[in-house]
Amino acid sequence: MKATVYVTIKQNVLDPQGTAVQGALHSLGFNEAKKVRIGKYMEIELDTNDRNEAEARLKAMCEKLLANTVVEDYRFELEG
Amino acid sequence: MKATVYVTIKQNVLDPQGTAVQGALHSLGFNEAKKVRIGKYMEIELDTNDRNEAEARLKAMCEKLLANTVVEDYRFELEG
Repeated sequence: MKATVYVTIKQNVLDPQGTAVQGALHSLGFNEAKKVRIGKYMEIELDTNDRNEAEARLKAMCEKLLANTVVEDYRFELEG
Repeated sequence: MKATVYVTIKQNVLDPQGTAVQGALHSLGFNEAKKVRIGKYMEIELDTNDRNEAEARLKAMCEKLLANTVVEDYRFELEG
């Protein structure tokens, strides 16, 4: 079963990496880039076929390791 | 117009960050995590309403700055 996890910085938290990328885009002439937010994208191959179990385990992985829930949000999709 | 950009490491390229996260998951007891690949996820607010123009500009941004096309793939979605 394949999982895709998205970890994003919460809306009210500063994103210095996004600000830096926006600055770099502007200096390259891409002035239409008004706001840039950067997150993480993870593909995880899970050795289970039980969807409910996979969801519970993924939630635990996100809470414990993949996301810092103080400043980040996460969501995931399961397929297969 | 809002763009979402996904940058992933090409399939045949080593992903040390993914390997490290997989090791950390295993040491936390998540032995079902068989393969982990890590990429970047970007949300970009574009100051344009022309979809074709936005696509062309995003492609240029990815090629020039957001992705290293030697070792990374990218794809993007546009909405609004």
